[in-house]
Amino acid sequence: MQPTEPMQRIERALAKALAHSEGGGGPPRLAQAMHYAVFPRGARIRSRLCLAVAAACGEDIPALTDAAACSIELLHCASLVHDDLPCFDNADTRRGKPSVHVAFGEPLAVLTGDALIVLSFQTLARAALRAPHRLATLMLIVGRAAGAPLGIAAGQAWECEPAIDLAQYQQSKTGALFSAATVAGAAAAGHDAEAWRALGEYLGEAYQVADDLRDVVCTPEELGKPVGQDETYGRPNAVQRLGLDGAIARLDDLSRAAAGSVPDCLGGVALRKHILSETQRLLPKELAVRAA
Amino acid sequence: MQPTEPMQRIERALAKALAHSEGGGGPPRLAQAMHYAVFPRGARIRSRLCLAVAAACGEDIPALTDAAACSIELLHCASLVHDDLPCFDNADTRRGKPSVHVAFGEPLAVLTGDALIVLSFQTLARAALRAPHRLATLMLIVGRAAGAPLGIAAGQAWECEPAIDLAQYQQSKTGALFSAATVAGAAAAGHDAEAWRALGEYLGEAYQVADDLRDVVCTPEELGKPVGQDETYGRPNAVQRLGLDGAIARLDDLSRAAAGSVPDCLGGVALRKHILSETQRLLPKELAVRAA
Repeated sequence: MQPTEPMQRIERALAKALAHSEGGGGPPRLAQAMHYAVFPRGARIRSRLCLAVAAACGEDIPALTDAAACSIELLHCASLVHDDLPCFDNADTRRGKPSVHVAFGEPLAVLTGDALIVLSFQTLARAALRAPHRLATLMLIVGRAAGAPLGIAAGQAWECEPAIDLAQYQQSKTGALFSAATVAGAAAAGHDAEAWRALGEYLGEAYQVADDLRDVVCTPEELGKPVGQDETYGRPNAVQRLGLDGAIARLDDLSRAAAGSVPDCLGGVALRKHILSETQRLLPKELAVRAA
Repeated sequence: MQPTEPMQRIERALAKALAHSEGGGGPPRLAQAMHYAVFPRGARIRSRLCLAVAAACGEDIPALTDAAACSIELLHCASLVHDDLPCFDNADTRRGKPSVHVAFGEPLAVLTGDALIVLSFQTLARAALRAPHRLATLMLIVGRAAGAPLGIAAGQAWECEPAIDLAQYQQSKTGALFSAATVAGAAAAGHDAEAWRALGEYLGEAYQVADDLRDVVCTPEELGKPVGQDETYGRPNAVQRLGLDGAIARLDDLSRAAAGSVPDCLGGVALRKHILSETQRLLPKELAVRAA
């Protein structure tokens, strides 16, 4: 039997998780809005990273890895729905279609985010009925990345402070879920999880730099969401700080640092290769020539 | 050593849970808003119910009971913060003070709710490091009461449907957390949890009827929040459906049904007494004479 491709595993796990929210006589539009927020897929970068780390660690309970990856992806989707709300970015589009509050109204967008956060934890709990000894650790990893003081909710909340701690802001808003992806991937496979945190932190920063580059050089059609948002909202952007070439060089450095940080493990060589190719794909097409 | 009073246990568990969100270099205003949403206390009805059931079951890991009760109370607080938002009830006051979005702004109110939901699950996970075999069950109980299709997020989402399923609406919006309180109390004590669901359902409906009565007969000063909200928003209200005396009689019936549903257990007699006295306290003072 061929091993299932990571993207198939993720889509299947997400569909299975969502199915639990859709049945049972609940309000149909909430179920539709939750589905709309999760499908069709984005790049699934965080959940693929989680699977890649678990594979490198020689995962022994694939259903638990899938649940960990799914849990992280659901949190990511929840954060996008709430970040797009009128009281935050007020973004009308996401992944090339109307954002959830535009399509379903603001009340359902708030509840969709809430229910996806809950579903993230439910998904872990369902899978862990078969691996109870790993559940608390996984929950604490995912919870740390989601809430306060260091998770994505805290990251977004830095925008509401009179003085922003920039490093903390980016680490919480973007880095936290990347770290959770690597750490949870290892924990799902029963490995020493914290040794994998540095990898997630490097990749989170790399992704942030790439996102900053896209916000500057891409069109809304390419991204499926508004561009120039950082300038509009006066948010920090690596291109503004380092210049275009400086930001491209920084992305390259982070990519190498990430690959170099992979702890010794069964599939370490393959994982390092995977990381270098994935981080190259982060660079907007317009800039690939410039970087070559 | 005297056993600690339930209310003290709850306040202590909540303070301990909140402390995890407050340290660690996170955004200070988010931490303040989370604290503001949880303290000073409301009646803590759901968490006291959870402790009462666990005690009746002869709880063997009090720290786990405390975490379960705390987890349910945090979800309740999160739902109040989100329900008060301008896109839902647009309520300016709660527990006699400005609601969270009035005091801290709408963005922080959204994030406060999010972070409290996450904290609810983190609290269970932290306590369960000492009782891993009960964590998945507790998480599934709490998750069911929080999300879709049957939890409080789903309950609130019925307000966004073109046609409302009234029984489902009330069961999800109010009943779900009461059921979670009784079922989780039993599960924390290692008992057959589902046998306790009927008790939670009766008490949830009793609380709903009492809430409907208060919305009709109390002043905003007595409640610490706006009154007449059901009429304003065209929401179902038991007084409108059954009349004032009918609603009072219904509350009495539900109170007896709840006491009668308590499964056989070590502390069953005391729990039945507790339930009858608690449900009597639900009746607004103005109506106590009328009911006597």
